[in-house]
Amino acid sequence: MKAIIVVGDGLADRPLNSLSGKTPLEAAGKENLDTVAREGICGIMDVIGPGRPPGSDAANLALLGYDALECYRGRGALEALGAGIDVRPGDVAFRGNFAYVDEDGVVVDRRAGRVEGSIFTEYLSEVRLESHPEVEVKVLPTLGHRLAVVLRGEGLSWRISDTDPHRDGMRIKKSMPLDSSQESRRTAEIVNELTRLLGEMMSRHPINRERAERGLPPVNAVLLRGAGEPPAVKPLSEAHGVRGACVAVTPTVRGACRAAGFDLYTAPGATGGVDTDAVSKARVAERILPEYDLVYLHVKGADNASHDGDPELKIRVIEKIDAMVGYLLERIDWDETYMAITADHTTSTRAKEHVGDPVPIALKGPEVRVDEVDSFSERSCARGGLGRIRGKELMPIILDLLGKVEIFGS
Amino acid sequence: MKAIIVVGDGLADRPLNSLSGKTPLEAAGKENLDTVAREGICGIMDVIGPGRPPGSDAANLALLGYDALECYRGRGALEALGAGIDVRPGDVAFRGNFAYVDEDGVVVDRRAGRVEGSIFTEYLSEVRLESHPEVEVKVLPTLGHRLAVVLRGEGLSWRISDTDPHRDGMRIKKSMPLDSSQESRRTAEIVNELTRLLGEMMSRHPINRERAERGLPPVNAVLLRGAGEPPAVKPLSEAHGVRGACVAVTPTVRGACRAAGFDLYTAPGATGGVDTDAVSKARVAERILPEYDLVYLHVKGADNASHDGDPELKIRVIEKIDAMVGYLLERIDWDETYMAITADHTTSTRAKEHVGDPVPIALKGPEVRVDEVDSFSERSCARGGLGRIRGKELMPIILDLLGKVEIFGS
Repeated sequence: MKAIIVVGDGLADRPLNSLSGKTPLEAAGKENLDTVAREGICGIMDVIGPGRPPGSDAANLALLGYDALECYRGRGALEALGAGIDVRPGDVAFRGNFAYVDEDGVVVDRRAGRVEGSIFTEYLSEVRLESHPEVEVKVLPTLGHRLAVVLRGEGLSWRISDTDPHRDGMRIKKSMPLDSSQESRRTAEIVNELTRLLGEMMSRHPINRERAERGLPPVNAVLLRGAGEPPAVKPLSEAHGVRGACVAVTPTVRGACRAAGFDLYTAPGATGGVDTDAVSKARVAERILPEYDLVYLHVKGADNASHDGDPELKIRVIEKIDAMVGYLLERIDWDETYMAITADHTTSTRAKEHVGDPVPIALKGPEVRVDEVDSFSERSCARGGLGRIRGKELMPIILDLLGKVEIFGS
Repeated sequence: MKAIIVVGDGLADRPLNSLSGKTPLEAAGKENLDTVAREGICGIMDVIGPGRPPGSDAANLALLGYDALECYRGRGALEALGAGIDVRPGDVAFRGNFAYVDEDGVVVDRRAGRVEGSIFTEYLSEVRLESHPEVEVKVLPTLGHRLAVVLRGEGLSWRISDTDPHRDGMRIKKSMPLDSSQESRRTAEIVNELTRLLGEMMSRHPINRERAERGLPPVNAVLLRGAGEPPAVKPLSEAHGVRGACVAVTPTVRGACRAAGFDLYTAPGATGGVDTDAVSKARVAERILPEYDLVYLHVKGADNASHDGDPELKIRVIEKIDAMVGYLLERIDWDETYMAITADHTTSTRAKEHVGDPVPIALKGPEVRVDEVDSFSERSCARGGLGRIRGKELMPIILDLLGKVEIFGS
């Protein structure tokens, strides 16, 4: 037995006046999603808890079966893991930008003219803090103007604030401890010292003379955000002997799956945006399924449309996901496979943000207790046979269907 | 956005033979409660947990969003808080009665002829225990024969038993530690010493000569019960920036709301009994709503009728609550307001006591996922879109609708 979990990012919504009181899911053409609901068992799911809007990072940890309230340690390390960087327990990782700040430390351009940071890879490969020689520092340019920073050493803490002011025109910030521990105070000091050092190093990089000649802004600062340790989790491969694969573009989702011990895949044309080629992801899932017990298929797009407050666009993304599910329905051997369809959180297209309403879930496959729900939506699924469950409960339910959960007791 | 939470004390019930198998809610005329159910999303709610009959104190803490199993510290401090008395973390507070005991210590009249205790306020304003001078003692007559006692000092514990035997004809009890801690043993000693001292002080009060002449029983003892510390909670005002108000008469409910950081209101004609003027409470709620995010409107009465085993009276109280909700339905701007209707516990009119069955909940307001339930009762709401939730989950759901809950994760 195998399973495919389809996670539509921000797929669920609240009823919208502009859709005559329907949610985008209720208003969309989604015969394939409805097929899964009709042939399966449905329910609603509080990904973190009732009334608790989940961030994407915490939400995907929950859908992978973890207690996010227990294991969550910030976004930075998940992003770094998702980008393929080696991050270990105890490390503190950050996302960052190459930026341009003026002589007063005010950020003029958070992206330094979208500089291609990979040219600095070699230059930044050996950064050492004289004040803290015991801390190993790794600075790794990733995509475009972005980079990852990993600190390694004893007694570091992820409970510190960003140096990134998150918009232009503001001064670069001092990182501050977010709790009263010695570790957080020390880590904030290290980050401030590192920010000063990286600023110096970037300022004296020869590229800036060349950029000045070409009328480009200098690259003279690094802004850090999202401090995080790897989540405190045991990979599903170890805990349940599950061979898992992740088909996703979003670094955080890839990072959460990597923490769960999954292999990471992407797909041609999958962009992480509303223009993503969802069927391309389905093709990858179809291709790799024979090698795995479980494929976690994450589709971005609906969330972006919600954040933009565009219900029509959200409907179009939902219809794209429906087509993707239709592709799978035609091609997978459903006598041997389970499919779950759900969302990582509800995103209100009116409020343009994540909200705490539960998400719908439909699960089809051999011996599932099929209920009477015949459509996939926030409201129809609330009448389903699964009732109201928690995000962290879905994975055990699926693993149990796969015969991967040991009896508790004897 | 604003919210009104209507809590009918002991509103829910079990089906009664005397009502042809209906519950009092099912048998009552309640078109306004049904309107809220029809226009909203419904569910059932285990206020503490399935099969766990809640006390009013723990139940209201749960409805305010707290984990009562974690934060509950007895009733005494809640009552004292609700009476407007300053009770701080670490204090141990009691409810008490002025009483008449005979020379053998047997309680002859637990209320000492319903003496008006306020005449002792000055006399009892400086009570000092010679054996424990480090403990600050406050004795405050409240209403009629009732009083509050607050102990303040290091290392006190609320895990001690009552000195009040709870009925006439029994000896005044020794307070005993309810756990094996040093703190509980010491606090029980202090309470026994205080009980002896207050007995002495009351015995020699000149009023007793006067009362003897008038044929009234002496006031020569103080009976203490319900030892409690303030609940270990963070006010909602601090945790979520919520401006909350409480419209209630019952001291325990007022105390729980005060612990949650709410301002306390009462209403003319609101008695805390079956004769209460519920519409008067709605008028207060309507008047103060502009100043608050959330109004917690508690209506007593249905519980009293249940404890008296009087289903017809319970139905009349329910119809009074229905009229109160009707008043609000006509006057509030429902494009900007949520309303939840629920109960703090099920009270069985047959058993005359709190039982562990879940309570119904209906929630109406903008963008709520309206379901197909069209009446408000224990059984109809069980088919609703909220499913089965816990008491402590209701407040986060409402705060999330008000946009007052932060994302977990990022």
